[in-house]
Formats: sequence, structure tokens, C-alpha cells
Amino acid sequence: MNPKIRKPNNSSSKKVTVSVLSVFLVFVFVNTFFYPSFYSDSGSIRRNLVDSRESFHFPGNFRKTKVYMYELPTNFTYGVIEQHGGEKSDDVTGLKYPGHQHMHEWYLYSDLTRPEVKRVGSPIVRVFDPAEADLFYVSAFSSLSLIVDSGRPGFGYSDEEMQESLVSWLESQEWWRRNNGRDHVIVAGDPNALKRVMDRVKNAVLLVTDFDRLRADQGSLVKDVIIPYSHRIDAYEGELGVKQRTNLLFFMGNRYRKDGGKVRDLLFKLLEKEEDVVIKRGTQSRENMRAVKQGMHTSKFCLHLAGDTSSACRLFDAIASLCVPVIVSDGIELPFEDVIDYRKFSIFLRRDAALKPGFVVKKLRKVKPGKILKYQKVMKEVRRYFDYTHLNGSVNEIWRQVTKKIPLIKLMINREKRMIKRDGSDPQCSCLCSNQTGIIHGV
Amino acid sequence: MNPKIRKPNNSSSKKVTVSVLSVFLVFVFVNTFFYPSFYSDSGSIRRNLVDSRESFHFPGNFRKTKVYMYELPTNFTYGVIEQHGGEKSDDVTGLKYPGHQHMHEWYLYSDLTRPEVKRVGSPIVRVFDPAEADLFYVSAFSSLSLIVDSGRPGFGYSDEEMQESLVSWLESQEWWRRNNGRDHVIVAGDPNALKRVMDRVKNAVLLVTDFDRLRADQGSLVKDVIIPYSHRIDAYEGELGVKQRTNLLFFMGNRYRKDGGKVRDLLFKLLEKEEDVVIKRGTQSRENMRAVKQGMHTSKFCLHLAGDTSSACRLFDAIASLCVPVIVSDGIELPFEDVIDYRKFSIFLRRDAALKPGFVVKKLRKVKPGKILKYQKVMKEVRRYFDYTHLNGSVNEIWRQVTKKIPLIKLMINREKRMIKRDGSDPQCSCLCSNQTGIIHGV
Repeated sequence: MNPKIRKPNNSSSKKVTVSVLSVFLVFVFVNTFFYPSFYSDSGSIRRNLVDSRESFHFPGNFRKTKVYMYELPTNFTYGVIEQHGGEKSDDVTGLKYPGHQHMHEWYLYSDLTRPEVKRVGSPIVRVFDPAEADLFYVSAFSSLSLIVDSGRPGFGYSDEEMQESLVSWLESQEWWRRNNGRDHVIVAGDPNALKRVMDRVKNAVLLVTDFDRLRADQGSLVKDVIIPYSHRIDAYEGELGVKQRTNLLFFMGNRYRKDGGKVRDLLFKLLEKEEDVVIKRGTQSRENMRAVKQGMHTSKFCLHLAGDTSSACRLFDAIASLCVPVIVSDGIELPFEDVIDYRKFSIFLRRDAALKPGFVVKKLRKVKPGKILKYQKVMKEVRRYFDYTHLNGSVNEIWRQVTKKIPLIKLMINREKRMIKRDGSDPQCSCLCSNQTGIIHGV
Repeated sequence: MNPKIRKPNNSSSKKVTVSVLSVFLVFVFVNTFFYPSFYSDSGSIRRNLVDSRESFHFPGNFRKTKVYMYELPTNFTYGVIEQHGGEKSDDVTGLKYPGHQHMHEWYLYSDLTRPEVKRVGSPIVRVFDPAEADLFYVSAFSSLSLIVDSGRPGFGYSDEEMQESLVSWLESQEWWRRNNGRDHVIVAGDPNALKRVMDRVKNAVLLVTDFDRLRADQGSLVKDVIIPYSHRIDAYEGELGVKQRTNLLFFMGNRYRKDGGKVRDLLFKLLEKEEDVVIKRGTQSRENMRAVKQGMHTSKFCLHLAGDTSSACRLFDAIASLCVPVIVSDGIELPFEDVIDYRKFSIFLRRDAALKPGFVVKKLRKVKPGKILKYQKVMKEVRRYFDYTHLNGSVNEIWRQVTKKIPLIKLMINREKRMIKRDGSDPQCSCLCSNQTGIIHGV
């Protein structure tokens, strides 16, 4: 006997679907605007426990970090683009930001001016009421300002004047003064950006490419975020492997540099004679960029040498080109190093080891194709972190890194408000120290 | 005409309830073991991007921090309790941990030995496979060991020997050596705990009550976590307000102390004569604890003076007693200061201001009852953070603070593995500096 299987009547299955869908939508909504975990702490500054304006914020509800971007006077943003172009414009906001290696300031600014619905996957949300903000973003084009200042056809433009007026404007803001700039984020990608006013902005989280021009109490891994240069070379989209990469090692750049860059001339002398090494002098020009692209896309390894400072754009050009970076820059700091283990796709050489005749090429020739392929695969996965145009690339990761600073920012704010000023002028520093155990790294 | 309202037949409403419940259970399950947000970064060390054992971990799924607690030889835990008791025991694990002001090590150890289902609201989950762990917890009873060593009827016990053997055991562990101790958490609550071996454990996250006995490269707010003493005085459960608190100011403790504690004798002289101030000498005894409880529960303000070090248990006794702390300890560090703004319920006085005759009592007498009530309300809300027995108290907050260190821990691990050792012996430090702007705080 075939038991009569009652077909579920139409209306009840509709009800089931509707209720499951509604619970699911609640789940998605809560997850988009909040990180609904019942137990872990939130990253919010403003809603600080025992904060006078709020009753207690109980740890347990994550939510996106709220960032307020100042409406800066246009002379700190589009006005700089206008100066760079050398022509007066009726509507500066229509001007196009010029391409160069420190475009981070432009991409971060555009990220925050995009409609929220387009800012997919961002760990932050822009707020327009400063009273709601956890962090305050200062979007001045401090790197482009340096380019305009360096003798471009400006209207007698002065980067130092821009810096002074920016900081005076900032210091007139109630929200800057409230916590002495601690909860502010300032982009200063070029190592020389904001140099003149650094002592007045050093409390803020600085977005920088290295610390070489900063004192220890001005910039550090603990307070600030190391950001990538915006790579100038197109990403390599060809096949992985070594077949197409007939050249062993590639480098193009200035031969003579200050400070840590002195190693360049020495290495030029050692490597120029090697037949499968291309090491050429070259300054920034459209033509040379084509030569660099050609060189990086057809080489197995790309040499990264310290320049005036330890960082340089070519490291990110190399990663985009899937050309294994060979880094000879002892003091280099690298972006996002808490989530990226650079040893998985780069080779670090001690400066003095690299200067031994034949050392570099002998070492690189020994690296097996399989290993190079492995390096390339890792680079292919990780290069989105160095792509400012990627939907979940450099911009989102920079905001994530900034968000991770919030606990220390909040601690410093509360502590400095009750701390008794110590006698003596030494800054009172909390540090994270490294490498006292004398371990010899690199090769 | 009364439209016939079709009563939903029984089975379809059952179906709706079942499906909604099942979706909800999925939601709760995912939230208990994961923090399911689609976009933000995870705090995991082990699953480091580009980590060789794992394919890429993509930012987007939070999950609880995984902590592995070493199964230490019992001489580092229950063996210390046995020594403290002065009698040999057949089963040391049955012994009761003695009460004292540094019981944090016991509460953290018991938290991790409790069944997971009881560890409600914890931001961490204990794992029993070290390969899975993000962090490694070393539960040695380093503070009790100091008490046993200080002349108790032990069996010729030596705390320094315990320290040496603990660190030798630790250095023999593969997981310690893997990242040079960076991903380890060690409790050392007593300011003198693990002092002899500090240079060999300084890479780890230290759980300490102050940094006074540590060099800047051994301990700091950036690397380590300031934890509360376990308060000895019962929490005040009576009515808020000043009626029952007839006494203005209370202090009981040693009159003569080293270092920062010299202020005590001076203040004794100034305050002894004030009729509504109780300032008495007293060492740790059961009887004195009753007197302190009586004093703190019936006073509006409780004086916290630096002792041998800047921190002391009485600050936490005062908070538990809802007795407004008056802190005269310039260099004091305070637990959980990123989520707690101590100015909301404490009064900070500069040392030299406090030593002006009449200054302290004049200032406290001016504080209005309404203000004292406000301080008490805030203390009542915040004191669970200083209660090691509270379900969501000190223990959970310590684990949350430890979890917030993970990004910097991961960064240091990756960085130190590729960093070239610098010439010269100075430690290479990344710092967060404070108070160079000469702002005078306190009163």
C-alpha cells in the first residue's frame, strides 16, 4: 500500500521560505554593518568604557571603524593638482590626479569619496559627523606637493608653506585638539613628506613608506603604518615559470645615491660584467618605464637596493611583475608584515655578503626553477595587497592596519589625560624591541 | 461580512518555527566559534598569509584566538602550592591555592583547565594541539614562588632555581624556539617575579602589574599587558552615597617604603593630624584586613600611594569598596586603560602638589556628594574588570588584551626572521612615545 504522501500545500512551503529568508537577511545585514560576535571587544574609540557621553559600551559587539575625513580647504588637495598642472582651472575638482609612485594619497582619498555601497569589503565606514568618528583622516596630498615644489612649472609654489598652513589649520580644529592628534591618521607617503612639521603631527598615525627620515619618537612600526608605493609597472599576466624569463637578474635606476644607497655603485661594478644580468642606469622617464617593464617581465630575479632611503617603488614593481625580489637593504621595513611573510617570495641578502665578488649570481643561479615557480605563485596571490586599484587590495589593508592601532590609540589617549608630566625632557616611550639576541639573518 | 480568517493549519506553523530555529542555531553556532564577518582580518598567527603549511588565509573570518597551555612539570604549579603548605602531599593536584594579592596566575590557570562549555564569553579557546595554537600560555606560579621563597617553612625552596629550571624547560620546547618566544604569554604578576631570567623571556607577552623592575626593552605597554592585583577586600554591596561614609580619607599600610614610596612618610606627617582622615601603619594580616575593609567601606576617598613600586593592591581594594581612589603615584600604569578612562572615577594628584600642607584634604572636602555618587556609580560598573571571579571580569579582559597584541606579535615574528642583524649592540626598538608636549596633568 503506497502511503499517501501529503504534498506540502503551497502556502506552508511559501511561509517556510519567507521566514528562512528573513532570518538570513537579518544575518547578512548585521554582518555587513557589524561584526556580531557576542564576546569580543570592539575597536571603537569614541564609545570608550566609562566614556562620559555614553553609558557603558560592553565588549561583545564589533562594528566597522568609523572614519571622518576632514573637508580640507582645496589648496591642500585639488589645489595641489592644479599647481602640478601649471594652469588655473575653473573647477579644480574636475582635475585628474597625475600618475607617480606615491599615489596612495589619491587612492585613499577616492576610497572615502566613493559611495558607501561601492566600498565593498572595507573594514571602515565613512561618517560625516565628527562626533561619531573613531578616527579622523587628513587627506592632504603631501607627496604630490613635494613633486610640485621640486621645480615644476608651479606658481612659485612652496611645499613647506603648504605644510605650515595645513598644520595650523589642523591645530585650529576642535577634534585635533581633543586628543592631541592621537586619533588622527595622516598620509605622508613620500619619505620627505611633512618633514618640516613632523614634530607637530607625530602623535597621529602616519601612513609612510619608511621611517628613514623620522626620529624614533616621531615614527615607528608600533604607532604608524608602512604602506606600499603605487607600482608603476603593469602587472605581469603571462604564464608562470622561467621559460619566458631568460634573464637571471635585473636592475635599473640611479647608480649613485646617498646614505644606504652607496651600495649601488659597488654592486654595479660587480654585476655589470655578468652576461645574464641586466643592471642599467636610468632615471624616471616614460621610455625607461617601458625598459623596466620589459626587463622585469623577462627576468627571474629583480634586485632591490636601498636608495636615498631603504624603501623604493621597484620592490612593488617587481612583485607586480612576478619577478622574485632580491633585497639588499638591511633596514628595510615592509608593508603589512603581520599578515605577509616576505621570505615566502623574496630573498634577503646582507649588504656585506652581497658585496663579495660572485656571491649574488652564484646564489641565484643555484635556485631551482621549481622554487622560482613557487615564489611566483605566492607573489601572484599576495600582489593584490600592493595594488591600490584592487577591490580588496592596498586601500582596504591600510584601513585594516589602521584599525588594529585603535587599542593602543585609546590607551595613549586615556593615559595622557591622567598622566603626571615627568620631570626632564626625555620622551616617555613604550617600545617593542628586536634582534638583541645576535641572530644572524639573511645569507 | 466577517471575512473568514483561515487559521494557519498546525503543521505549516510547525514548519516555519523549525526552519527559523535551525537558521538561528546556525547563526549562534557560527558566532560562538567564529566571528563571521565577511570582511575583516583574523587575529591568527599560525594561519599567516603565505604560510607554508596553509594555502592562503583570506582576511574575512574572525575566530577566537587559540591558546595552548603547556602541561608544565608540576613543580612549577601545584608543587609550589605544596611547598607553600610546607607538607608533602600524595596528590598535589588536590591542594588549594593560597589567598594572596597576586592570585591572577591561579585564576588564569583555572580558567584554562575549566571545561570549554563553562568558559562563557571568553575571547580565547584552549587547544590541545600546539600546532593549532596562535599563542602559548606558560602558567608557572611565579608569584607564589616568591612568597614561598621569602622564608616560608619550605623545604629549602629557591625561587631563583625555579626560574632557571622553568626557562631551561621552556627553551627545550620546539614551540618556544620556533618564534623565539614571541607568541608566548607568561604570567609574572609580582613586580619581582621571574626577575633573574627576564632577559631570556622578554620576547614573550608578559602579564605584569607594573614595569618598575623591568628595563624598557624587557617590558612595555606595547608588548605586555598590565593586569590587576586580585583584591583582598570584599566588594562593598551597600547603598551608594556618602551617608554611610563618614570618613573623608583612608590609608593603611607601611609608612616606610623604598623608591617612589618615600612620599608615604611625608604624607603620614601631613595627614595624621586631620580629624576626618584615617592614615594608619599596618602590615598584611587577617586582623588588619578587617580594619582595611571597615576603613574603605566607610570612607569617601582612599589614598593610593606608590610603594616599592608604583602599583599596589589597595587601588583594587578601593575600587571593590567603591571608595574613590586618590592616586599619588606619578609613574603608575593601569590595567585595561584602552577601555577604561580612570579619570571618571579616580583623582590623580601630582606628588609635589600632594605634599603641600593642607592641599589634599582641602581639595577632597570640596568634592560635592553628587560628584562622589557619580564616581561610585562608575566604579560599580567598572569593578567587574578587577574581579578575577567574575564571569566576564579580569580573566576575560586579560585574554582580550593579549589577543589585541597578535598583529604586532605576527609582525615581529615575520620581521625578525628576515631582518639582517644590525652592527652594534643597541636593541632595535619601535616605540610609542608620550608627553613630550609638557602638558601638566593631575592637580
